[in-house]
Amino acid sequence: MKKSALQRVRAEYQPKLPKALQGPVKLNIGEATESVADQEEIKKLFPHTYGLPIVQFETAEAAERVEEPFNVGIILSGGQAPGGHNVVSGIFDGIKSLNKECRLYGFLMGPSGFINHQYMELTAGYIKDFRNTGGFDIIGSGRTKLETPEQFESGLKILKELNIKALVIIGGDDSNTNAAVLAEYYKNINAGVQVIGVPKTIDGDLKNKWIETSFGFDTACKVYSEVIGNIQRDCNSAKKYYHFIKLMGRSASHIALECALETQPNVCLISEEVLAKRMTLDNIVNYLCYVIAERAKLGWNFGTVLVPEGLIEFIPSMKDLISELNDVLAANGAALEGLTEDEKLEKIHSMLTPVNADLYKSLPKTIALQLSLDRDSHGNVQVSLIETESLLSQMVAKRLEEMAEQGQYSGKFAAQHHFFGYEGRCADPTNFDADYTYALGYNAAMLINSGLTGYMSSVRNLTDTTENWIAGGIPITMMMNMERRHGHMKPVIQKALVNLNGRPYLKYASMRETLALNTLYQYPGPIQYFGPAEVCDRPSMTLLLEHDKEI
Amino acid sequence: MKKSALQRVRAEYQPKLPKALQGPVKLNIGEATESVADQEEIKKLFPHTYGLPIVQFETAEAAERVEEPFNVGIILSGGQAPGGHNVVSGIFDGIKSLNKECRLYGFLMGPSGFINHQYMELTAGYIKDFRNTGGFDIIGSGRTKLETPEQFESGLKILKELNIKALVIIGGDDSNTNAAVLAEYYKNINAGVQVIGVPKTIDGDLKNKWIETSFGFDTACKVYSEVIGNIQRDCNSAKKYYHFIKLMGRSASHIALECALETQPNVCLISEEVLAKRMTLDNIVNYLCYVIAERAKLGWNFGTVLVPEGLIEFIPSMKDLISELNDVLAANGAALEGLTEDEKLEKIHSMLTPVNADLYKSLPKTIALQLSLDRDSHGNVQVSLIETESLLSQMVAKRLEEMAEQGQYSGKFAAQHHFFGYEGRCADPTNFDADYTYALGYNAAMLINSGLTGYMSSVRNLTDTTENWIAGGIPITMMMNMERRHGHMKPVIQKALVNLNGRPYLKYASMRETLALNTLYQYPGPIQYFGPAEVCDRPSMTLLLEHDKEI
Repeated sequence: MKKSALQRVRAEYQPKLPKALQGPVKLNIGEATESVADQEEIKKLFPHTYGLPIVQFETAEAAERVEEPFNVGIILSGGQAPGGHNVVSGIFDGIKSLNKECRLYGFLMGPSGFINHQYMELTAGYIKDFRNTGGFDIIGSGRTKLETPEQFESGLKILKELNIKALVIIGGDDSNTNAAVLAEYYKNINAGVQVIGVPKTIDGDLKNKWIETSFGFDTACKVYSEVIGNIQRDCNSAKKYYHFIKLMGRSASHIALECALETQPNVCLISEEVLAKRMTLDNIVNYLCYVIAERAKLGWNFGTVLVPEGLIEFIPSMKDLISELNDVLAANGAALEGLTEDEKLEKIHSMLTPVNADLYKSLPKTIALQLSLDRDSHGNVQVSLIETESLLSQMVAKRLEEMAEQGQYSGKFAAQHHFFGYEGRCADPTNFDADYTYALGYNAAMLINSGLTGYMSSVRNLTDTTENWIAGGIPITMMMNMERRHGHMKPVIQKALVNLNGRPYLKYASMRETLALNTLYQYPGPIQYFGPAEVCDRPSMTLLLEHDKEI
Repeated sequence: MKKSALQRVRAEYQPKLPKALQGPVKLNIGEATESVADQEEIKKLFPHTYGLPIVQFETAEAAERVEEPFNVGIILSGGQAPGGHNVVSGIFDGIKSLNKECRLYGFLMGPSGFINHQYMELTAGYIKDFRNTGGFDIIGSGRTKLETPEQFESGLKILKELNIKALVIIGGDDSNTNAAVLAEYYKNINAGVQVIGVPKTIDGDLKNKWIETSFGFDTACKVYSEVIGNIQRDCNSAKKYYHFIKLMGRSASHIALECALETQPNVCLISEEVLAKRMTLDNIVNYLCYVIAERAKLGWNFGTVLVPEGLIEFIPSMKDLISELNDVLAANGAALEGLTEDEKLEKIHSMLTPVNADLYKSLPKTIALQLSLDRDSHGNVQVSLIETESLLSQMVAKRLEEMAEQGQYSGKFAAQHHFFGYEGRCADPTNFDADYTYALGYNAAMLINSGLTGYMSSVRNLTDTTENWIAGGIPITMMMNMERRHGHMKPVIQKALVNLNGRPYLKYASMRETLALNTLYQYPGPIQYFGPAEVCDRPSMTLLLEHDKEI
């Protein structure tokens, strides 16, 4: 593998560890815990792993336990996030610090490698090339869900074969939920295998008091903010386009919000707000047109709009339409066969209830077709394929024409579209994410050595210096509640949506009108690794605000 | 203007100057020049500015001329390129070094500001905020072509009113051609105004022996390479998609080639090669399918493909089709009114000559519609709107299905699409571009002080240390030849296409098969400003190879 100049230099970076993890540790055991909600149900479902205490590591004079060599297995689960390779490096260095004979195995391409016994040993020489780099290519990742007893049993075979004492699952809320189920399962059958979770997701929706942020969020947002800033410079130089920029984040708008705080666009839509205010597509289009018309009065026919990927599903009326479309199309697939696109649209329109029919008719044709024709294997609308950024700009253009006819608008409107996702998920981690993930991994090794299972690796106090970060573990069951999934009530980790009473949102909301009617773009520029700390080491603005710091 | 942390720190960066420009300069005058071709015609068209000598600056004991204070005007012309603000800063510092009383004026929003007398004075305090930043927002840019005597006369009025001695035009090949025409015009009427050009374009197609690279190319390619690298990490982690990545470069493929050298994708198409080999769309699709099928045999159903924006126009058969479509649609617009999309496609198909009709029929419907329906104000197909990346992936998918039926392919194919343009045009300049543009501007001030007109600012020897860069001026007429434009023969600066006998292309071609059938991605990472020189100061690989250096 030939490396770029930056890779070669960056390979030498030694991630910083919290003071508590810099030498031998001792374990402080806290109070027993309760789940965030539905305590009775969760307790019933997790008899062996419910109510465990929060634990925290402290520096010790000497190691509390000197462990026989043990082996650890790792699974990278779901979408990539910057820093995954440093979690692996951290675990490796952590277990080697305990005993040089410890071994680390990686299951290939996600949970399927675990179930199907595809794995490799991760040696010092192999890991070396991946330290401080982005991506999950060290062992690959996958989206297979690890949730059935058959899978658990199949996995157990290879764990036993490799003499693996603990399995670390690096994933988002669903993968960590499954880690908890697996921990309970193994505990129940006395399998002698611990399971530890590591909080990963660029979407930022796996967080709470003990998990202050999921890893990768910091880096991904900074990459997106870099290119958004570049686009804003262009926008403000050419002064002739509205750029509609869609950003990842289907279930929550943390990414869009963080990028808005970083770049100060003219508009940033927040899905959670749209839902809370029960806004319609019309409301959103009208707001955009208001901003555009007001800017036109100032002579500015340009601007930037950030759109979270999941917006459509947070608009109650669109959700109703999609739901009815799913039913109508499932029941009437045959009737649509052989029709032209126009005939299909007409036919579908005639089958919808009046309110949904009206909304359907108001959509641009390309979007109506995306909603009607592209189905997933379950026959459902593929919401992720809908070009929301284009939907909005087309509807805005149409509305502006009407406004112009009524003398309410006299500007020029032209749009450009962008969607950023893959650009940031595998970026080389920022210093923050490089340190955070290394600490999460190292800390996971210590949790394993302490004999714990069903815990998530927790590194906190993240807006302080790395030295002062707090390392420990949180029982996963503690973060759970019961939610309806595919028609059944299930125990799941509560997803963190954008809190409309939280400081990050309130900060943006307080600037919103000013940003809309002025041009106050910020240009964060590319992630830096070698410069002054204020440039290289600043955590996300979301985290700073959540910790009552100023930005 | 609230600044990001990086902006605040980066504002302090003092661009490096070549030794020759670090103090008083003296002018070395070289031999008289000839244009690169069509000498007689060019000479006739530029009687006052043809045959001028190449000039070069050297360090002097004391300034050769101590100048009365003079004023300079600046125009930013055409698309943005990283470093434009440092050209402005360099000119400012250059004229102030000659006489503190010199003044600098910026014409607003490109040539139209010059013609319509919209301008502002650029003061030290105003410029300060723009040093080392990307974008052209300091005075804005525009695409108005400066080419008629009426425009020249209108501009002259404001030049006289502001007592401007010299006009600096920062632009691409067309803008610099117009700068030469303007210089000749003013010289001919004894207007007493010099005109100096500065070579700008991220496309990299304004270059020759004396203009080693146009500014912005380095930065833009590094931003694109950063995100391409990130996508490649994702591609290699998830192992399930082919990413088709379109890059800027309508007239030449320098950007795609540079990014290919930086990131080592599986495939990079080069428009100039497609033209030289008279490749058809089918040839290209077949090559892509060959690579995909071979990779599938190795178990890899993923990969990356770089596509230059202008590809379509370099495919001879596509060019023929587009040309006939332009004629057919112009002549038969009325006959298509009121038809459905399908009827229109059918009708258009029936009006084409057989060869073009076959090609038209082979195109995916969405692309055929883009070719048939989206016309510019002259009624021509808007080639820039054609989603070439999607065209290719759709045709590849179809061909792979056929191959699968014939037992020649048994992989899985799924595509993702990206187009990078606005993401890089206004990025903060790399150290290379920051230094280069500052030197170009400073050097332009010295050319003005030497009384020259019709020259382009030239800073050469760019792969050596900045100290050893060579600064001087090149008569613009020297780079000209006669070309047909809009039906007339015109004197224009010869555009530099990718040279198929040049080292950059040959280097890529030598790796091509290896890159296609292996997975050897490189990940350049984000532009760095503060680290080791090998990371922060390396010029583009194209430039290194052109200077017989290794990469």
